[in-house]
Amino acid sequence: MNDHRLVAGMVGGGPGAMIGAAHRHAMWLDNQYVLAAGIFGRDRAPSAEFAQSLGVERVYDDYREMAEREAARDDGVDVVAVVTPNDSHYEIAKAFLEKGISVVCEKPLTNDSNTAAELVAIAESNSVILAVPHIYSAYAMIRHAARMVRNGDLGRIRFVAAEHASGWASAQVDQWRMDPAKGGVATAVADVGTHAFHLLRYITGLEATRMSAELSTLVPGRPVFDNATMRLTLSNNAPATVWATMAATGHEHGLRIRVFGDDASLEWHHEDPQHLIVRDPGGGSTILAQGMSTLSDDAARLTRVGLGHPEGFLEAFANFYSDLADILRGSPGREPSIPTGIDGLIGVRFVEATIASHADDAAWVTFP
Amino acid sequence: MNDHRLVAGMVGGGPGAMIGAAHRHAMWLDNQYVLAAGIFGRDRAPSAEFAQSLGVERVYDDYREMAEREAARDDGVDVVAVVTPNDSHYEIAKAFLEKGISVVCEKPLTNDSNTAAELVAIAESNSVILAVPHIYSAYAMIRHAARMVRNGDLGRIRFVAAEHASGWASAQVDQWRMDPAKGGVATAVADVGTHAFHLLRYITGLEATRMSAELSTLVPGRPVFDNATMRLTLSNNAPATVWATMAATGHEHGLRIRVFGDDASLEWHHEDPQHLIVRDPGGGSTILAQGMSTLSDDAARLTRVGLGHPEGFLEAFANFYSDLADILRGSPGREPSIPTGIDGLIGVRFVEATIASHADDAAWVTFP
Amino acid sequence: MNDHRLVAGMVGGGPGAMIGAAHRHAMWLDNQYVLAAGIFGRDRAPSAEFAQSLGVERVYDDYREMAEREAARDDGVDVVAVVTPNDSHYEIAKAFLEKGISVVCEKPLTNDSNTAAELVAIAESNSVILAVPHIYSAYAMIRHAARMVRNGDLGRIRFVAAEHASGWASAQVDQWRMDPAKGGVATAVADVGTHAFHLLRYITGLEATRMSAELSTLVPGRPVFDNATMRLTLSNNAPATVWATMAATGHEHGLRIRVFGDDASLEWHHEDPQHLIVRDPGGGSTILAQGMSTLSDDAARLTRVGLGHPEGFLEAFANFYSDLADILRGSPGREPSIPTGIDGLIGVRFVEATIASHADDAAWVTFP
Amino acid sequence: MNDHRLVAGMVGGGPGAMIGAAHRHAMWLDNQYVLAAGIFGRDRAPSAEFAQSLGVERVYDDYREMAEREAARDDGVDVVAVVTPNDSHYEIAKAFLEKGISVVCEKPLTNDSNTAAELVAIAESNSVILAVPHIYSAYAMIRHAARMVRNGDLGRIRFVAAEHASGWASAQVDQWRMDPAKGGVATAVADVGTHAFHLLRYITGLEATRMSAELSTLVPGRPVFDNATMRLTLSNNAPATVWATMAATGHEHGLRIRVFGDDASLEWHHEDPQHLIVRDPGGGSTILAQGMSTLSDDAARLTRVGLGHPEGFLEAFANFYSDLADILRGSPGREPSIPTGIDGLIGVRFVEATIASHADDAAWVTFP
Repeated sequence: MNDHRLVAGMVGGGPGAMIGAAHRHAMWLDNQYVLAAGIFGRDRAPSAEFAQSLGVERVYDDYREMAEREAARDDGVDVVAVVTPNDSHYEIAKAFLEKGISVVCEKPLTNDSNTAAELVAIAESNSVILAVPHIYSAYAMIRHAARMVRNGDLGRIRFVAAEHASGWASAQVDQWRMDPAKGGVATAVADVGTHAFHLLRYITGLEATRMSAELSTLVPGRPVFDNATMRLTLSNNAPATVWATMAATGHEHGLRIRVFGDDASLEWHHEDPQHLIVRDPGGGSTILAQGMSTLSDDAARLTRVGLGHPEGFLEAFANFYSDLADILRGSPGREPSIPTGIDGLIGVRFVEATIASHADDAAWVTFP
Repeated sequence: MNDHRLVAGMVGGGPGAMIGAAHRHAMWLDNQYVLAAGIFGRDRAPSAEFAQSLGVERVYDDYREMAEREAARDDGVDVVAVVTPNDSHYEIAKAFLEKGISVVCEKPLTNDSNTAAELVAIAESNSVILAVPHIYSAYAMIRHAARMVRNGDLGRIRFVAAEHASGWASAQVDQWRMDPAKGGVATAVADVGTHAFHLLRYITGLEATRMSAELSTLVPGRPVFDNATMRLTLSNNAPATVWATMAATGHEHGLRIRVFGDDASLEWHHEDPQHLIVRDPGGGSTILAQGMSTLSDDAARLTRVGLGHPEGFLEAFANFYSDLADILRGSPGREPSIPTGIDGLIGVRFVEATIASHADDAAWVTFP
Repeated sequence: MNDHRLVAGMVGGGPGAMIGAAHRHAMWLDNQYVLAAGIFGRDRAPSAEFAQSLGVERVYDDYREMAEREAARDDGVDVVAVVTPNDSHYEIAKAFLEKGISVVCEKPLTNDSNTAAELVAIAESNSVILAVPHIYSAYAMIRHAARMVRNGDLGRIRFVAAEHASGWASAQVDQWRMDPAKGGVATAVADVGTHAFHLLRYITGLEATRMSAELSTLVPGRPVFDNATMRLTLSNNAPATVWATMAATGHEHGLRIRVFGDDASLEWHHEDPQHLIVRDPGGGSTILAQGMSTLSDDAARLTRVGLGHPEGFLEAFANFYSDLADILRGSPGREPSIPTGIDGLIGVRFVEATIASHADDAAWVTFP
Repeated sequence: MNDHRLVAGMVGGGPGAMIGAAHRHAMWLDNQYVLAAGIFGRDRAPSAEFAQSLGVERVYDDYREMAEREAARDDGVDVVAVVTPNDSHYEIAKAFLEKGISVVCEKPLTNDSNTAAELVAIAESNSVILAVPHIYSAYAMIRHAARMVRNGDLGRIRFVAAEHASGWASAQVDQWRMDPAKGGVATAVADVGTHAFHLLRYITGLEATRMSAELSTLVPGRPVFDNATMRLTLSNNAPATVWATMAATGHEHGLRIRVFGDDASLEWHHEDPQHLIVRDPGGGSTILAQGMSTLSDDAARLTRVGLGHPEGFLEAFANFYSDLADILRGSPGREPSIPTGIDGLIGVRFVEATIASHADDAAWVTFP
């Protein structure tokens, strides 16, 4: 068969790793990728067994070897998903980028901005794509929200309240994200805060110019900060707040954003992603639903089934991979949009800024 | 590559056909099927072009030829999805079943119960699967709801109110479902009512023993009944109501079920499929969320990502295909469950019963 | 003090009687009534003690004596609220109406339409008001809903689904409403179904021309019908359904109405009474909130505080009493609107029609 | 008539003043107060006319005269509601307190903490009540929330997010609250932030030990701060955030609080005040409804009608006045609870702290 699909690889994401599974479903959903190569754990045998269960043909022991050999093949991978713990992102992503292979690297891109900036530079100099899956910006209704803001439907943005207040680690959990050596000390910011911040940037088109952060540990004895409250000043001088935690007892995902303009406001919750609430100054609320014919072209393009057929997290993730496929193929005529290494770098700077501010008792720090 | 995937075919579902696209995404999402053969329209050229865009290798002009040739191949299709208008289901499904090829046939299975029963018999005598994608019963939370009822958590079922009140045809639409020759005269029942009825049967484990139906046409001039209100007596003598329409102005999908037991009640909406509301007699409500660790094994098995990561229509559809894959492979050790030809036949009888009751001014008719 | 308030009396509503308390709060809220006379139970001493605790000056043993003596006083009651069990409504209301005293009589007005019609006639011939507190039609947002329909905002009404599915008697309760001699056999219809039906009539301005009803008993051993499903044909030939029960396990009040027009639909729930959902054919929903400046004059007039300050059941009840006060005073220049004896009579006929239909296996009966 | 009601007076709250009307309805709802004296505006004639329309017997020109003459009467006022602009609270409240008359004074108690403390001292030395109507803490479900926290149902409190983000002044409004001389410069904090802060204190039983505030002006040209974001450290060292604004475009009242404990969390919205959401660490949510028999005695006591009958803002306000009546009468045997002058003083200090922090670029300030 003359397979029309792009060829993908994966490093990390062995059995039980949720985020690796999400990448794979997202690649598969639209049948645009074949997952052909990978490393699914440190030990060869279980990695190979897992690969076979997934139909992955080529299994490697070492990511440098994988990069080298895949780069050498005619049918080698077009792109590799790096879904390992944060502290290994830099070395792995670098290995592939240097061999001219595009990379989807989980957030935070790296654990410090120097290495993140280096990855961006390497991708650029090798003319390959470095993408960071802040996939919440790929929801159809978020795309529509961003277009409403660009169209001026909200007027001047006056305030933004974003939060990613998850409950997934409300109690003690034994996981690499709770190890400061692997996930960094500001894990609430790195793990979820960067998503909320990217969503704010994506919808509003604004950047942060300064910020103040208070980091705290809500679960006693936890060696990382699992809670963070941030104040931002945005590039149009509007104030904003971001709250990030994994210890919001009883919350599901808890990603929510509210954008207030002079003429209208927007609200979106990840728990109900196919709807977008628009409020007018008179107090009326309009609920827009995915699949309505009046939404933007971009929202329509990213809707697979239609009104009344909820699309969820994996569809948003697949939107990311679908736009990436367009970009990798150089397809014209659409409006693909994915978070890149630059966005990933800004996310890392965001993490660093929270740590710097916190170290100074939540003083304002200029956002680089 | 030694592809581990099942081989699937499709008849119908050309460009723009929503339901065909849904089947394909559902096959792909878990990478358990390769769509290898199909007929995507009456005209060869566009069908072949579309097949190529999908990566489908073998295109046919005629379903009988397709059945014959695929049956003859070693790598021929394991299963075919029939997603054509209702009036052609019988002939197409029969052609494949007779060649020993399993069939997923869209609902209503056929336009009369004799032919539906014949398909069931053919599938049985050829030892192949005939499945009908009432996919709403494949949502994780619906699986959990059914298990709660089986566990006795609700006590005796005393009343059920099901509705599939969609707004998709609130205004005039030009489509085969509005042509009585193709979709039948009771299109509200055939198109959506059968889904609500199957959901009721799946969750409660009860059958209908008699029913009364009033059919009506809400959109003036429409040559079919686009609205139906049904009263049922269930096999435990509890009363139930089903409302089916495609003309509920402004509704999205409008599929909703409420099951009342002596000890608790359940409510589920398709607009928020990852939650299930459980109400206790004291007036308190508990909202269960997909991914909670306390849900049934079956709900857990059908959850790909986890708490806080909404799964939607395509995931439910993929649950159907995933269970079908288990059945086709004869995999042991799980609890696959798919609506079969028998369920499809009961759905056709449901449509017929509504027509018979309506013809007698909504008199009670015994449900066969 | 020259008290500007109307003088009210009450029969029934002793300690612990919820509905009597509701009437009193509703009279007091806007300071338009002084409750000056009453009978709060069969036994003199506790009735008098309760009256004193309420600040009620004149206590009687017998409603006929009360009617006579109040009618004879210069400062006698302007209106009496009758809040006794259903089977006593007729005699009590008649006693006051005949003495020229206006009456607010709880629903159902009486237990048969002959006596209900007689009360209407007596009120008319004595030129006094007979009002029936279907107070849900007094919510500001219901007033607005009715005006939207009158304005043609919904276009032709094509379907209505009303339900009053309360959970208050999901389990055995020992109360007069469960005694067929006092509350009638169709208690679900009399107790709550009449509210849903009145709401339907008030919002749409349509009457029922025929109906079919299935009555059932959801709580085993209960000597009355605690569940009823009704089909109606409305005066514009649109179909409608009404579901009434007190045995909807886990429900709070469960009063909900959805009105579908060709151009838009409306939805309102009693659990969130200060909002009204308007849906457009494209799938968008607009939520109107009490206090918005764009609502109808009538909704604005019935809003005490303003946007963001929820008003509930007692405020709706007080709206009823406020409009009644305007009518009793003959105040010009507003748009008072209260359910009258005619509405009460139609409600009694509704109850009777359900019993007649049910007796004939849910056959259609012409609505008188 | 031997009126059993307490005698109340009012200063302020003329025609069109929303908060004055709210106080009056709240006094009347339970028939525990007669409003007998007042000043309803600066000009005698319209004030007297308005008084007459309300049935208020005694109208005064000057609050000092009113205090003196009412104190001298046997049937003089037991309590006076002061509902004038903030800058006049001190002088007016003082006049009544000094004459031994209890005062309900709108928040903020005064515009500076010295005068607020003075009022507290005067009330104490005259053995009268000084109450501040932070009436949100009088909602039945908030009472229940506080009792859940006291019972330890949430475990240790780890984080609180409170917000009062109203949209009432999203656009330019011409009102005394926008005049820094009358309402203070931090109007967002004084007007609504103090409510959110009191709710936090009431539910959690915790005090703030330090705070950081950023004040901003969202509506261009407005001479006051209409937006404030606060960080608090609570007395158990848990962090908390408070967001206060009147410029949240499109919001109704926007009062919402979320309290996170180690074992459960609570959420309450003013838009749906009769429900309280309780979340468990496993991700399940339970919605408690006013009127459920399992709620605390205090919640039950403050419920007038029962499950399924929403009570709103005026009922909460009446709960405040009902508890005040118990206190004024010295009634034993219940659990009245009203915000006092101390709470009002803490509110004023809260306003001052936000101004101090803001003046130092949102630095932490110790909370006195």
